[in-house]
Amino acid sequence: MLAAIETGGTKCVAALAEAPGKIQRRIEVPTTFPDETFARLRDALGNAGPISALGIAAFGPVDIDPASPTYGEVLVTSKPGWQGASYRNAFAGLGCPLRIESDVSGACLGEWGFGAGQGENVIAYVTVGTGIGAGVVHNGAILNGVGHYEMGHIKVSRADDDGKARSVCPLHDDCLEGLASGPSILARWGQSLSELAQGHEGLDVEASYLAQLARTLTLTHRPARIIFGGGVMKTPGLIEAIRRHTKSSLAGYIDCGRAGDMSDYIVPASLGDDAGITGALMLADSALSEQ
Amino acid sequence: MLAAIETGGTKCVAALAEAPGKIQRRIEVPTTFPDETFARLRDALGNAGPISALGIAAFGPVDIDPASPTYGEVLVTSKPGWQGASYRNAFAGLGCPLRIESDVSGACLGEWGFGAGQGENVIAYVTVGTGIGAGVVHNGAILNGVGHYEMGHIKVSRADDDGKARSVCPLHDDCLEGLASGPSILARWGQSLSELAQGHEGLDVEASYLAQLARTLTLTHRPARIIFGGGVMKTPGLIEAIRRHTKSSLAGYIDCGRAGDMSDYIVPASLGDDAGITGALMLADSALSEQ
Repeated sequence: MLAAIETGGTKCVAALAEAPGKIQRRIEVPTTFPDETFARLRDALGNAGPISALGIAAFGPVDIDPASPTYGEVLVTSKPGWQGASYRNAFAGLGCPLRIESDVSGACLGEWGFGAGQGENVIAYVTVGTGIGAGVVHNGAILNGVGHYEMGHIKVSRADDDGKARSVCPLHDDCLEGLASGPSILARWGQSLSELAQGHEGLDVEASYLAQLARTLTLTHRPARIIFGGGVMKTPGLIEAIRRHTKSSLAGYIDCGRAGDMSDYIVPASLGDDAGITGALMLADSALSEQ
Repeated sequence: MLAAIETGGTKCVAALAEAPGKIQRRIEVPTTFPDETFARLRDALGNAGPISALGIAAFGPVDIDPASPTYGEVLVTSKPGWQGASYRNAFAGLGCPLRIESDVSGACLGEWGFGAGQGENVIAYVTVGTGIGAGVVHNGAILNGVGHYEMGHIKVSRADDDGKARSVCPLHDDCLEGLASGPSILARWGQSLSELAQGHEGLDVEASYLAQLARTLTLTHRPARIIFGGGVMKTPGLIEAIRRHTKSSLAGYIDCGRAGDMSDYIVPASLGDDAGITGALMLADSALSEQ
């Protein structure tokens, strides 16, 4: 039996499956402090019989380098209690091989294997919610450098009519997460994007920010497809507006997909809330086969 | 004998070597029209005896997908006569395996193998000259998506005191190449960067633009090191100014190297004008071993 865990800012998911893509049991637990959260996740996995491998898609920043002495530890974070928490130690008792990647890389892998990225050599996945992040899968493998990517903090130009927006990022006055994440939208407009009245300028402002990431991804990774997921992306009309802004911004410099309106290039996630946990099951599967 | 070709906007280099890193013959020819240029390059390689493999680092855009019917062809370009020119056809007569990558990817590979990127798992190489481009080498291999990267065209925010600068890019009013390439510097200040008086604001403006690429590379690829090369980078003080701007822009969000001043993270190219041709010889070597 393969096991998988996905952790997020407010909730975590544990799942069991004979094979990735066929989730047999799926349990959600709230994200509180690490000891309590890990104990609940262990309970969720605990009585299913022997587990052959565990894959983890963890909220960042997390040490994903298997050669590092702190592999599987949460790195510098403002999330109370989590800095230094060790997934590797917490689940060592399972006695099985384990692989950890960032949550968004896990979701990218899941969409590549079973969702909107199937059949493509290189895809990117962007999540837009409490935070903003992106991952890339290249020939079936998650791409990382010395750590997982941190694309939420790319510099963006403020939207023309948005000069006075304040960034909610504690470090960057000018980053994408600071100006376009869910909390930023709430701080700016007093409502979530989907609560704004139809035709409200907030949708276009948001799309112009996310299109800057789409342009950056296009030029820095040349993916065949960019998949957008996360809570904010449930807003009707947002993905179409991102396509328009991206097309206008690239100005025809690069072919992106075959459809002139980028509808086959910038696409919604198709696994919904299961992208991350599906990717985590694929990580378990790869940990098993690499053993 | 391995053969290599590097093509650029004004000149091309052909080289022969028993092994990459040990160039035995190096010949430069001017870049004119493709037929003439290719003929001179063939002559340069021609009388050295049998060639076992050819590596090419070509100015972009060029089709680098071996599975494509137009592999080795120059793609849409404003360079007169070059669109559709085929490296593969031009050098088919050598009867040896061949591999083509972009010039900047080739230079990145060269610096990884024999220059400033040795020993690192992931490095990026940026060239700043007539154009601006960047390549990434990941575990010894050049990274590409559906095509080679096009990082020169990332969107940048104008420097605070630079609001009126005009972009020299025909497509983008706001891209790095348009605002920070050699021709852009000349158009803005009437002189090259190294000709400006000491203390001229142009140096800081240029560094602020290039630091935006360094930040983007850091967040999108997490390299262990970013290597800057190309003619503009010969300007004294420029690399130090890029480090300062990058450090300030990232605001401590990510550790970049061990030195607090980024002097081991943002570094000058060490192979100088031989980075590209050295990488092209490594491409020849890999074409041979993959045969």
